[in-house]
Amino acid sequence: MKAVVFDKELKLVNDYKKPIPQKGEALIKVTLVGICNTDYEITKGYMGYSGILGHEAVGIVEEINDPDQSLLGKRVVSEISYGCKDPNCQYCAEKLYRHCPNRHTLGIWGKDGCFAEYFTMPLEVLFEVPDSVPDEQAVFVEPLAAACEITEQLHIKPFEKVVVLGDGKLGLITALTLNAQNIDVLLVGKHQNKLDIAKSQGVETSLLNNFKIKKIYDVVVEATGSISGFETALSLTKPRGTLVLKSTVAASKEFNLAPIVIDEITVLGSRCGQFGAALRLLKSKKIDFSPLISATYPADKAIEAFEMNKQKDTLKILLKF
Amino acid sequence: MKAVVFDKELKLVNDYKKPIPQKGEALIKVTLVGICNTDYEITKGYMGYSGILGHEAVGIVEEINDPDQSLLGKRVVSEISYGCKDPNCQYCAEKLYRHCPNRHTLGIWGKDGCFAEYFTMPLEVLFEVPDSVPDEQAVFVEPLAAACEITEQLHIKPFEKVVVLGDGKLGLITALTLNAQNIDVLLVGKHQNKLDIAKSQGVETSLLNNFKIKKIYDVVVEATGSISGFETALSLTKPRGTLVLKSTVAASKEFNLAPIVIDEITVLGSRCGQFGAALRLLKSKKIDFSPLISATYPADKAIEAFEMNKQKDTLKILLKF
Repeated sequence: MKAVVFDKELKLVNDYKKPIPQKGEALIKVTLVGICNTDYEITKGYMGYSGILGHEAVGIVEEINDPDQSLLGKRVVSEISYGCKDPNCQYCAEKLYRHCPNRHTLGIWGKDGCFAEYFTMPLEVLFEVPDSVPDEQAVFVEPLAAACEITEQLHIKPFEKVVVLGDGKLGLITALTLNAQNIDVLLVGKHQNKLDIAKSQGVETSLLNNFKIKKIYDVVVEATGSISGFETALSLTKPRGTLVLKSTVAASKEFNLAPIVIDEITVLGSRCGQFGAALRLLKSKKIDFSPLISATYPADKAIEAFEMNKQKDTLKILLKF
Repeated sequence: MKAVVFDKELKLVNDYKKPIPQKGEALIKVTLVGICNTDYEITKGYMGYSGILGHEAVGIVEEINDPDQSLLGKRVVSEISYGCKDPNCQYCAEKLYRHCPNRHTLGIWGKDGCFAEYFTMPLEVLFEVPDSVPDEQAVFVEPLAAACEITEQLHIKPFEKVVVLGDGKLGLITALTLNAQNIDVLLVGKHQNKLDIAKSQGVETSLLNNFKIKKIYDVVVEATGSISGFETALSLTKPRGTLVLKSTVAASKEFNLAPIVIDEITVLGSRCGQFGAALRLLKSKKIDFSPLISATYPADKAIEAFEMNKQKDTLKILLKF
């Protein structure tokens, strides 16, 4: 089958072996996938992964190796991690598969990804997509779930002020998601055209240049992916407030931890989320993801699509299989 | 009056002007004070402070500029910060004076400290010391309150595992305080003689060399004051666990924030605390601070005392006024 593989270098392979669903797994025929910055990070060495890339997909279940055939023929999306399911695993017991120490993660860790004609995943992490949600919206479910993760981890009170720093994909989706939950959110970024995507959907926005740095925010979401963004975030978080750290970039730079202690700030690492809340939001149509799609490529042009993904002003790049 | 002053350099002054209590303040005659590492940091430039040093004291109220004279003649300790008391100040309303943006902090920020024959502080931050608690124990109330701050900020559940890294004053007091609250705590350090102080009071301890680094702790308290300690703490904190950051050192070094995001760790900055819980612990006599006293100097030998405080193996140095 056709597959986008990273093995020292990124390549499009035409004769990759079609996967066979293991016990409890489904075989999914891919229709549409999204390129994530993590995919790009992997091509730079992140996680030391090699194999088929990709963890954002919509597809149709074509085969199920399990007595439960209820998802057969359904259009589905897949959470990206599955756990060991050992009854003693605290994380699996809480469905926090993404923290199971023996987890497998689609296209990131120990499991071939979804940038291919087919992929397999266990049934317990597959979710049927409501008919009313087109592929082009459903393909955003994974980054949307990552944005929903913030309110899984943190109780944001209705009177609290939230600022999201960064108007890339991550910042836009985070701001749109918080806004869709009726949270008082301000998105700050450097690109008026990107800010306008959120603004047109009701999110308050500000250009960084016009934004006054004041230590008054209850919650600050760092979504710039840069250490300077982290430092700005620290200078915006009020004493006893929370700085939500969303970027997994491998960057490093000298900096002083003292302000975290002096202002008793909580720095909350936040990664992927469960799909339940994300699917409810998709179904509610409170967010329109189409303005975030910079381009859709056929799978045969995957390498070109990855090149475009690197460009500074690109938002989401999709691949059609 | 006699006072230990930092003004570009540390000096013992014999003719410092005796303070006059302002409205709502008490004048306290100092009996015993403790040197804190923050005092040493100030002499290296921390906070840009100049004036009388010191924020850990026991003394007797000698005069009160207020109709409420109830503390007159009483032995007291003082919280280190007082706020603006503006009715619109959220922090003052919650008695979080230590986070009021217009706060004054004893011997640290905008208020002469207690390393002197007399100091003044507002009545609302003074607490009477129970008769059963001698000066040598009461003088530890401020670092004890800072240790109690952890359970003010964080709900540590009875089945959770806590490790404290660092067997200096901060680590010892933190471990003793958590243990006194029946929390499952392990103290890890490099010095058997220091660990033994905690061990003899019922705290489980381990030398760092014999300690296996495993990512299994619900709560890790960083009390080494070093960035390498922070990195070790990160490698001990389980996914979704909490790393309590206690050190205010101005150190800085390159490091990678990605593990915080990947494991969704909460980094919780933690500083000073309210005195209520600390005074209850002192009264209960669940902790004996006397083994932490390395030496007690007369005020006239303050400079010598500061020199000794710099020595690596020193724990608490007290000054008698």
